[in-house]
Amino acid sequence: MSDSSSLNALIQGLRRLPGVGVKSASRMAFHLLQHDREGAQILAQALAQAASHVRHCERCHTFTENAVCDTCLDATRDAGKLCVVETPADQSALERTGAYKGFYFVLMGRLSPLDGIGPKDIGLQKLFDRAGDGAVQEVILATNFTAEGEATAHVIGETLKARGLRVTRLARGVPVGSELEYVDLGTIAHALVDRR
Amino acid sequence: MSDSSSLNALIQGLRRLPGVGVKSASRMAFHLLQHDREGAQILAQALAQAASHVRHCERCHTFTENAVCDTCLDATRDAGKLCVVETPADQSALERTGAYKGFYFVLMGRLSPLDGIGPKDIGLQKLFDRAGDGAVQEVILATNFTAEGEATAHVIGETLKARGLRVTRLARGVPVGSELEYVDLGTIAHALVDRR
Repeated sequence: MSDSSSLNALIQGLRRLPGVGVKSASRMAFHLLQHDREGAQILAQALAQAASHVRHCERCHTFTENAVCDTCLDATRDAGKLCVVETPADQSALERTGAYKGFYFVLMGRLSPLDGIGPKDIGLQKLFDRAGDGAVQEVILATNFTAEGEATAHVIGETLKARGLRVTRLARGVPVGSELEYVDLGTIAHALVDRR
Repeated sequence: MSDSSSLNALIQGLRRLPGVGVKSASRMAFHLLQHDREGAQILAQALAQAASHVRHCERCHTFTENAVCDTCLDATRDAGKLCVVETPADQSALERTGAYKGFYFVLMGRLSPLDGIGPKDIGLQKLFDRAGDGAVQEVILATNFTAEGEATAHVIGETLKARGLRVTRLARGVPVGSELEYVDLGTIAHALVDRR
């Protein structure tokens, strides 16, 4: 592509980003070098800083720069409830509802044998230890409602139930604001079974 | 999203990349921190290195780390021919054909008044100086066949013709391997007019 080894190294570096192929990487590299060198320097610093400073919270496994994250240090939360989510983005969605005031455990993934992601990769032992600390009374499974998320919830639920904990799952049902005619049949069937 | 300021800074940094919004940036940041910290460090170094070392070739304006790029230093090339392209990627496509052995001038863009890109931004004065060095006899306009690329070629062509240089444009016509039935009418019309 070019006789500039720095440029080629940059294109190869950008390809490490998920969903970025050689064409996108070239476009990104040209854009940064031609129009936004300041942005390139800012991104370089942010990457180095994050890669060396961000670690996992000892209690909930989410990304943080301290030993324990701010959420886990929040003494106003209900220590009897622990909500299990796949990613920090899922946790953020739950927080924004304002409807939950307990603690979290962030798996940072989901069980996915086909991708080689097993119980160790999502810290299940750490979750079981956390849930068995004596204070937690209810574990709310809020993994995604995909095949892998459901399987992950099932594995966690069975193990925790065997240890005598109360395990619940987010309700399946008709989304707020939707018309029945346009809701998929699996969702309506679940909403019927779980009617209250 | 998170109490980690490094993570938030990384997400903001990734948003400087073209075509990357806050959702993609979060996904990229989580991927790098969770699965590829080595990639994050490599990308950080590549960005810093490229942003500080890559500059423009004094003769052809392309990206290089030296004063003059390898292509411009190649004494085996035909000094009488100068090919004007929009980007290093276009130059690379022409090089891979093996059908051209002259020199290049890389505009690093195209005239686009709506985006505020005028003659100064694509170094037209530098091109006119380069084309008027006495050795160049023919300037081949190889900007893209888009509205903006055509306008850019027109502006350059008119100026260089007025200075007595021979100016040519890449041929428009039917692509190799295509069936007439499926070629757009504008292309067929051009191929008819330019028949040989």
